[in-house]
Amino acid sequence: MESPFEQRLTDCQSRLEDGPAQLAVCAPGSNLTYLTGFDESPSERHLLLFIPHASADASPTFVAPTMYNSQLEDLPLSRLKLRLWDDNDDPLEAISRTLESFDLDLEGDGQPAILVDDRMWATFMQDLQSLCPAAEFGLASDVLEGLRIRKDEAELATLARAGELADRVSMEIRSRGEQLCGLTERELAAEIDRLLAEYGGHEPAFETIVASGPNSARPHHHSGDRTIQRGDPLVLDFGAFVDSDLAGDTQYPGDQTRTMVVGDPPEGYETIHELVAEAQQAAVDAVKPGVTAGEIDAVAREHIADADYGDAFVHRTGHGVGLEVHEPPYIVADNDRKLEAGMVFSIEPGIYLEDRFGIRIEDLVAVTDNGAERLNESPRGWETGGIHER
Amino acid sequence: MESPFEQRLTDCQSRLEDGPAQLAVCAPGSNLTYLTGFDESPSERHLLLFIPHASADASPTFVAPTMYNSQLEDLPLSRLKLRLWDDNDDPLEAISRTLESFDLDLEGDGQPAILVDDRMWATFMQDLQSLCPAAEFGLASDVLEGLRIRKDEAELATLARAGELADRVSMEIRSRGEQLCGLTERELAAEIDRLLAEYGGHEPAFETIVASGPNSARPHHHSGDRTIQRGDPLVLDFGAFVDSDLAGDTQYPGDQTRTMVVGDPPEGYETIHELVAEAQQAAVDAVKPGVTAGEIDAVAREHIADADYGDAFVHRTGHGVGLEVHEPPYIVADNDRKLEAGMVFSIEPGIYLEDRFGIRIEDLVAVTDNGAERLNESPRGWETGGIHER
Repeated sequence: MESPFEQRLTDCQSRLEDGPAQLAVCAPGSNLTYLTGFDESPSERHLLLFIPHASADASPTFVAPTMYNSQLEDLPLSRLKLRLWDDNDDPLEAISRTLESFDLDLEGDGQPAILVDDRMWATFMQDLQSLCPAAEFGLASDVLEGLRIRKDEAELATLARAGELADRVSMEIRSRGEQLCGLTERELAAEIDRLLAEYGGHEPAFETIVASGPNSARPHHHSGDRTIQRGDPLVLDFGAFVDSDLAGDTQYPGDQTRTMVVGDPPEGYETIHELVAEAQQAAVDAVKPGVTAGEIDAVAREHIADADYGDAFVHRTGHGVGLEVHEPPYIVADNDRKLEAGMVFSIEPGIYLEDRFGIRIEDLVAVTDNGAERLNESPRGWETGGIHER
Repeated sequence: MESPFEQRLTDCQSRLEDGPAQLAVCAPGSNLTYLTGFDESPSERHLLLFIPHASADASPTFVAPTMYNSQLEDLPLSRLKLRLWDDNDDPLEAISRTLESFDLDLEGDGQPAILVDDRMWATFMQDLQSLCPAAEFGLASDVLEGLRIRKDEAELATLARAGELADRVSMEIRSRGEQLCGLTERELAAEIDRLLAEYGGHEPAFETIVASGPNSARPHHHSGDRTIQRGDPLVLDFGAFVDSDLAGDTQYPGDQTRTMVVGDPPEGYETIHELVAEAQQAAVDAVKPGVTAGEIDAVAREHIADADYGDAFVHRTGHGVGLEVHEPPYIVADNDRKLEAGMVFSIEPGIYLEDRFGIRIEDLVAVTDNGAERLNESPRGWETGGIHER
């Protein structure tokens, strides 16, 4: 498959041309990976990609530590320039010379002239501000979000594989039933991570959540030393990155939540589990191009509020998924962004009753031309054990 | 053990009092963990700790999503205030009300009035700038670096345990000798990660580096599909986080590099391995309070330059290690920071010969009252197999 990165860089430069900003600066992270295939963690060393607008007629330029030379030269991009610095140099000099090479007018006229990566560390942004004191600053998402938010076929295929991987692990864990009792949350989380790797995943997409018993009422619980017992509600929220077919190091994550019980559930549990499942189904059914993200949130929220549990649904209905496990579109109240075919996001309503239990059911969905396709199809009920035989 | 966090917050507020800034704002990451014990990954949701200077006589205040309520209430800190927002609220309103509650004068007088976390994402810093358009901004490291750079006894004990863990894995891998041949880099990296966990570690402190054959000449190589063969130089750079005895979720990492060969090394390899080991020893011997970080770098660099390999030592000599695996002090040319007892950093000179091989030897050291103590003591030679019997 041909590398899509040349086109993405060109699109970015054209989008800059359409707005007031003349330059975008990306830092290690998903924007950089999206544009170049280069996947590196942020670090204290200045590693920045400077992308001038199209009419500057200049090449995007990496300012990077010398040690990344061969990795950057191997990128499937012909138009990139490299300006390397080593640990004995002042990186601000390399940045300053790069800015001069573009022949831009970065004086502020009340409009942002420089867009910086939304996740660029403040220390690097302050360096850029010190070098361009007259420039107004904005965020690179102003030009990149519109590109990244609709996934192409290769991206959709990769996200579907990440979904199948999470499904497979979810079904395996569910089938173990009684065997889950006696494990600590941390042990079960480690077993989930092991299975994700065994079935072909890379890193977990986020810290695997195993929340048992009353811990399930904490939406972002960190798996701990609590031992799982019969009758405990278990919230299992996990996924792993899988390789894409694209050149470069690009990977896409899965993200799925199932809530289940070994044995008999606590009083009142079944009704609420069904309520959450219905709210999730209603929100999935409402997805199609032209509907706003906020309207999808409202569908799930109203369903739960109608049963008088509105206050217990303490988070948004979902988040976009792509190179990042949380990215636009956010399925949150008042988000007026209209859904388009190719968008991928989670639908994950939840009800959290403090000191009792919590229930969340999450699938990823891809917007199609006339509706939504779920990327997760594993059973969503609370029953465990022998599920495969049913 | 009593929680040290109250004292750390008080120290931070006092240090603010001593300078022009009136407010520090921390984001999820090591500064926040250092001050409160709260350990959370950065995310797109506004989660910020506002710390006013001492004379404001006001409590540090978390602005945080509602879903973190119980985790934040459980922190071992009595003076914290929480201002929660949920996904249906505008987080900027919560921030705005928090700023108003402090009664600060954030007008700029050419001096930074607000210090933001060095690793705060640009999107959050731009939000703060939009709310405080007249304020000058600086970096929180101005007040926090001086606190964090000298480790207390509990921190030193934890770092020593992380060092022992890396040593143990290093010795185990080395002892396997011939068994390493036939594994891919990625498989060996996975085995190292498995051993780190089996011996009591949490997450790897960074992506475990297994660089074999000519890949060893890339200092930041990502372990790939290359199969390890007899005669390959292997650069193995890894470590894992271990729990501290402190309250909260604080963990400290190990970081060690060994370079070894199964069978006979390539031509010229032994001489250069010895040269790197000597440079490393010379730099360790030079460590004591009062010497500058730059002087330690110079000792290692001159040793290698004297043998005409100066151009092949493409990175700094080391980096501080604490809650972050890379933090001050950086052992780099011209760094005038004087070493003090309690500082912990790596000493890791390397020589990289493109298309041939690379060699790096890394230990962590703690500065003592009159010298340095190594936190890694595993064998540093290139020989593999049966090392335990010698």
